[in-house]
Amino acid sequence: MPELLDLCPPDEAWRIFREHFKPQVAVERVPVREALGRVLAEDGSTERAEVLTAPHDLPAFPRCNMDGYAVRAADTYGASPGLPAYLDVVGEVMMGEAPEVHTGLGQCALVQTGSMLPPGADAVVMVELTQPVDERSIEVLKPVAVGENVIQVGEDVRRGDALLPAGHKLRPQDLGGLLALGITEVAVARRPRVAILSQGDELVPPEQAPGPGQVRDINSTTLAALTEQAGGMPLRRPIVGDDLEALQTAAGAALAQADVLVMSAGSSVSARDLTAQVIESLGEPGVLVHGVSLRPGKPTILAVCGDKAAFGLPGNPVSATNTFRLFVTPTIRLLQGAEPQVERSVRARLARNVSSATGREDHVQVRLEERDGELWAVPIFGKSNLIYTLIRSDGEFVIPLDSSGVAEGEMVRVYLH
Amino acid sequence: MPELLDLCPPDEAWRIFREHFKPQVAVERVPVREALGRVLAEDGSTERAEVLTAPHDLPAFPRCNMDGYAVRAADTYGASPGLPAYLDVVGEVMMGEAPEVHTGLGQCALVQTGSMLPPGADAVVMVELTQPVDERSIEVLKPVAVGENVIQVGEDVRRGDALLPAGHKLRPQDLGGLLALGITEVAVARRPRVAILSQGDELVPPEQAPGPGQVRDINSTTLAALTEQAGGMPLRRPIVGDDLEALQTAAGAALAQADVLVMSAGSSVSARDLTAQVIESLGEPGVLVHGVSLRPGKPTILAVCGDKAAFGLPGNPVSATNTFRLFVTPTIRLLQGAEPQVERSVRARLARNVSSATGREDHVQVRLEERDGELWAVPIFGKSNLIYTLIRSDGEFVIPLDSSGVAEGEMVRVYLH
Repeated sequence: MPELLDLCPPDEAWRIFREHFKPQVAVERVPVREALGRVLAEDGSTERAEVLTAPHDLPAFPRCNMDGYAVRAADTYGASPGLPAYLDVVGEVMMGEAPEVHTGLGQCALVQTGSMLPPGADAVVMVELTQPVDERSIEVLKPVAVGENVIQVGEDVRRGDALLPAGHKLRPQDLGGLLALGITEVAVARRPRVAILSQGDELVPPEQAPGPGQVRDINSTTLAALTEQAGGMPLRRPIVGDDLEALQTAAGAALAQADVLVMSAGSSVSARDLTAQVIESLGEPGVLVHGVSLRPGKPTILAVCGDKAAFGLPGNPVSATNTFRLFVTPTIRLLQGAEPQVERSVRARLARNVSSATGREDHVQVRLEERDGELWAVPIFGKSNLIYTLIRSDGEFVIPLDSSGVAEGEMVRVYLH
Repeated sequence: MPELLDLCPPDEAWRIFREHFKPQVAVERVPVREALGRVLAEDGSTERAEVLTAPHDLPAFPRCNMDGYAVRAADTYGASPGLPAYLDVVGEVMMGEAPEVHTGLGQCALVQTGSMLPPGADAVVMVELTQPVDERSIEVLKPVAVGENVIQVGEDVRRGDALLPAGHKLRPQDLGGLLALGITEVAVARRPRVAILSQGDELVPPEQAPGPGQVRDINSTTLAALTEQAGGMPLRRPIVGDDLEALQTAAGAALAQADVLVMSAGSSVSARDLTAQVIESLGEPGVLVHGVSLRPGKPTILAVCGDKAAFGLPGNPVSATNTFRLFVTPTIRLLQGAEPQVERSVRARLARNVSSATGREDHVQVRLEERDGELWAVPIFGKSNLIYTLIRSDGEFVIPLDSSGVAEGEMVRVYLH
């Protein structure tokens, strides 16, 4: 058992890995309309740096914010239903067109929400607060202040304002904001390529009926899906048996094409030692952590080979998923210039006692239930390495290293899957 | 102002819409490895219904869950470091192979985590709790119970067990669970096709420099991105001006290709009335709700035309986004057979007083800040229809119809964007 004598706490494992891993964000330019979920990057070229600051004011012209009449506010002062202000209607501003009218003293122009405010006017009176006198004049029943019902030039965003920072993941509204300013292309991080390699003499592809003692390889698909969720591009490699030479060839070829290599080893100790040997051969500094005080996920390998990251995850699908979320997802985010850890979580009350061994970080699967308006976390029964515990669960909570358990009724933070 | 006299509360608007809208879930079969994010469906054909129940036990054979020796538990009873049990090693079970050995009385076989338990054995002793005597025998230092360190046939999931319900959105671990059972293809809801049509004389494509009084169309892109997030397939249509005939032609053609039509109208009342007229002409029962007591988003149209859903959203991008999330996202989910409303939310303390008009549901944009370990919701200043309020915000909270506001320090539920 050479491997697991020296278990490293999860935080410490990540710290050691980060000390050696220097992520380079590769940048590409994409159309904004295809940029949903991509992470903004700086591409370093000064003539393009302005994409993340506003190239002009928004709105670019004073926009009417109500259907009604553009007026000079001073003309309406003191107006009331008993003593309305009379104004001459000198024209109408058409949507999407420059105003052809100028509103002078005692004059107004018909406008719509979204029209350009005509020169001379400084406010808009809602149509509901006016009454027509004849075709050419109206009564205004209530005064407006200067600027009322008008969106001023630059009120939304000013020329030169910073828009969105590098490292920001683009949401639907962000695409809209960029397009509103005529920014139709942005620099984003290239999707990190993550090579996924399942290792094990017992594995067959999921399409194949397993013989006695064989199981279907499911990690290739699960880890590829987790890669996609993290913003990466999975490169799925064929299954390799527990053979040093074959593994070295396959892992070397996989890493050459990728930014990150993820091997999920067989479940036995000897298979895992093989993985460590293979990863160690891929480049300096090699294996940094081998064995993490974590359940599930103890036999995890964190490595840096040259400028690339490599991980050896346990073959058990529950452990593989848990350790992927803990170490590989943040790595994929780092490679996009984003914050490494952004997890969705909720707070819930634990529905029964859960014990844990001190010195080990336990990740406990739970189902969420709402009872009397309060959220409860119900631990899922079953050995921690059964895949269907993961499928029946909505998320997990963490029992820290130094805790021997959490009592029923305590509040826990549940990280959602 | 014919339209907005009769405002409908948002809940009531949805109820009326649901009364008339009978979503048909269209089903297609896809490979499991491409099914991330898709929603499981029942395809009605009985010979395929078994895809959602387990076709066989998992694991299909008793699996060793430790590296060590497969034994008969009874042979180890009473064993201790002082008085170990002696067992003959009769062979080794190779990974991925049927055992060639049978362990009789006083015998054991070398196994690895993941090996098949050999016939005759009923438990596994961890290698750490054994000592080699010679090449053919070991000492066991501690007794094991029957079944210890063994995953029994069907312990993960039993043949015939229900796996995942229709309406469930597939996560990475779900793909793994299905593949583990040899289910490599599943019936899922076809992505609902959502035609998106921006209307307005003032609109130009975002690539084009707007003239005086013109603005760039950003709703096409924002609403397409929201469609994708909801699991739908956006069909983007060209911008159409505020012209009844052109709109009727364009909307009719769009709806013919789609399951849902989303028009975002111009910002003026007359443009919105046009939208209502166009939608009304597309089929029975037509416009069901025209005007919702909601800010932002008052001039929203909910309609059913034949068996399809149609929405007229306000042209203002903030209102369009808000009403899309409120009405269109749930519709896209319904068309996939999923629960209509699943929103991510967090609870936070409001950082300052926010007032609201009674009789109107206000959606207030906030930024989330952590202060002393507590989450605070900081309202974003600025008129509610500025796109950059949406970009600077992390989410929104809702002030209900019957409330006149929320006081600083009160807890609010923030729906994340």
